[in-house]
Amino acid sequence: MEAKRIDVLVLRLPENVLLLSGHWPMIGAAFLVFPREATATCIVPACYQREVAGTLEDCAASFYGYGSTDAPAPMAAVATLLGRLATGRDWRRIGYEGNFEFAAPSWNAAEAMVPAAATLTMLQSLFASAELVDVTGMLTIERLTKTAYEIERLAIASEISCFAMEAFQQAVAPGISGVALAALVEQAAMVKGTGYRGSVRVRAFAQVTTGDAETAEAHRPNIISTTRRLENGDFAVLELGLVADGYWADRTRVSVAGTPRDEQVRIFETVCRAQEAGVAAMRPGALARDVDEAARSIIRDAGYGAEFPHITGHGLGFGYHEAAPILGPRSSDVLQEGMLSSVEPGIYTRAFGGCRIEDDIVVAADGPLVLGPFRKALQ
Amino acid sequence: MEAKRIDVLVLRLPENVLLLSGHWPMIGAAFLVFPREATATCIVPACYQREVAGTLEDCAASFYGYGSTDAPAPMAAVATLLGRLATGRDWRRIGYEGNFEFAAPSWNAAEAMVPAAATLTMLQSLFASAELVDVTGMLTIERLTKTAYEIERLAIASEISCFAMEAFQQAVAPGISGVALAALVEQAAMVKGTGYRGSVRVRAFAQVTTGDAETAEAHRPNIISTTRRLENGDFAVLELGLVADGYWADRTRVSVAGTPRDEQVRIFETVCRAQEAGVAAMRPGALARDVDEAARSIIRDAGYGAEFPHITGHGLGFGYHEAAPILGPRSSDVLQEGMLSSVEPGIYTRAFGGCRIEDDIVVAADGPLVLGPFRKALQ
Repeated sequence: MEAKRIDVLVLRLPENVLLLSGHWPMIGAAFLVFPREATATCIVPACYQREVAGTLEDCAASFYGYGSTDAPAPMAAVATLLGRLATGRDWRRIGYEGNFEFAAPSWNAAEAMVPAAATLTMLQSLFASAELVDVTGMLTIERLTKTAYEIERLAIASEISCFAMEAFQQAVAPGISGVALAALVEQAAMVKGTGYRGSVRVRAFAQVTTGDAETAEAHRPNIISTTRRLENGDFAVLELGLVADGYWADRTRVSVAGTPRDEQVRIFETVCRAQEAGVAAMRPGALARDVDEAARSIIRDAGYGAEFPHITGHGLGFGYHEAAPILGPRSSDVLQEGMLSSVEPGIYTRAFGGCRIEDDIVVAADGPLVLGPFRKALQ
Repeated sequence: MEAKRIDVLVLRLPENVLLLSGHWPMIGAAFLVFPREATATCIVPACYQREVAGTLEDCAASFYGYGSTDAPAPMAAVATLLGRLATGRDWRRIGYEGNFEFAAPSWNAAEAMVPAAATLTMLQSLFASAELVDVTGMLTIERLTKTAYEIERLAIASEISCFAMEAFQQAVAPGISGVALAALVEQAAMVKGTGYRGSVRVRAFAQVTTGDAETAEAHRPNIISTTRRLENGDFAVLELGLVADGYWADRTRVSVAGTPRDEQVRIFETVCRAQEAGVAAMRPGALARDVDEAARSIIRDAGYGAEFPHITGHGLGFGYHEAAPILGPRSSDVLQEGMLSSVEPGIYTRAFGGCRIEDDIVVAADGPLVLGPFRKALQ
């Protein structure tokens, strides 16, 4: 903030409010006012007073009426409180979130609240003589490397993902559908995750593909779980996003229903070796494209180069995906201590289906740290 | 568009792409190009070719590489295709989504993709001599009244919500936790909803409060399901958001574990009467505040006026909540045929807990139409 001469940040994306205050907003109607030279204040709907009290770190709270028939218009109420905080301050450059086109949901994932014209207009009218500065880039960089505290919270999310993957591995069998597996996995995450190491708000998003045709396309960024039922010798691939109190995990596991075919075993073992090589390459100073190559070369050497169409991994933490690092052949990213990235190579064939293995790895000084280690096994 | 002299809309919020093309985007990376005087075109990541083919209505499709290592930068790829569509057209006023601060998630609810500076910059650079016009207000009005086709799709979502409410009513009993109930409800929606009347992508978001202290606060816009276990005589309140292929339902039901206390029966019956009075008042031409008063006066007359702090209902359909109508005492909305609104009065007491009943109602010419009717019963 000092380098960019920003006097105050006014943020409302839940992921950024969490980053700088410790509070993960309930619905996205909270605004974090973060001055360079004073204590931060979170402006929050009054009905969430209790949730805020337990989570704010070095941050005051200020409340506005919300959700009741006598409540003021939210943006006007926020403007009033923000105006009070600005009184006596000489804020000339105001940082706002102008260019987040990916947004992690707040607790209520059914509805994202995001800054658009109304927020900007409010800021412009309140700070008519100040300059509004888009701080998207600055926040993106701030989020790149995780603190020890954040890594601990991210580990909790990954540990909870193990409950979900366990439920998946247990349930894969001929006869069950992808939709039923996805629902079981989400249920296990919520029921076993809530309360785990103090977790309060846990939700999983599972996508399960089954059989040759579906898993051959399991490299698509998002796939639909269907009512198709598993048959003997089918791959079932679980793609899992999971959030625990604002911190994300992103995992993938594969199982076979009944007896695997030889080629499936070969594909699976190749993917495991590639994934482990990628993980081992996650060291401070490494080039992201070299991590990709460490995994990709194993798949290429095994003759599946054309069947691994996607990148090896991506940053995450305050969202399911983050802008960096990108572990891909064209990436110019350099790994730094504290970065978190998925490592998730895969092989997808028409004849035998496809699979992927994915874990989240911290780039640590003493070597790669896999969050929430979990077995890799076809059955 | 003609009245506002808009030559073309360029939209990317999944809910608006659905509104004007029939396709509910998978991740939010689709752009709908909707000219006033030519066929619309949806610009879509190539990996979702199949999903698009089955859903587009009066709309062409154009694809760009996405999610593979050889794919171009998405915004540049979109700009190229959009530039081609603009060739030979004299587009002078371009409509964009500048002020949607509430966004419904795409299929992948774990990550919202929303228009921000990158989209606007792309449009500005591509249409340097044109005028960019924020069409948020126009789209909001377009969404207010639902077509017969949309009502049919919304009815499907509400019918699926009945599977979820049935699972809830069956499972409420002493010993089960709010978290376990919420997970069961979401599971039932996904497993029984997927495939129901052609539904492909179904997801529920359940929040269950239990016992006097939690349900006394169940009027908060969003509440957290906890690990607290139900005891005999506890209310359990289910707040349910549900999306089926982009169309939303919003329901609430209450049950009692074991034997209800007399006061709970009185509260519940009052809420049911208020809800039915609100529903009955949902007619074309009615003032939204009169619908609110129809429900509120029954609660007030029963002596619980102060225990009903929120509005009686809100619009919905292409999202969990929509901007209008608002059924509240200060609303100036007038109901029109084809509008859809929740009707959801509640009573929340410290001594006996709280409850709410919520259905989604279409304002139809021949009287209020409750989508997915479902019983109201304490047990």
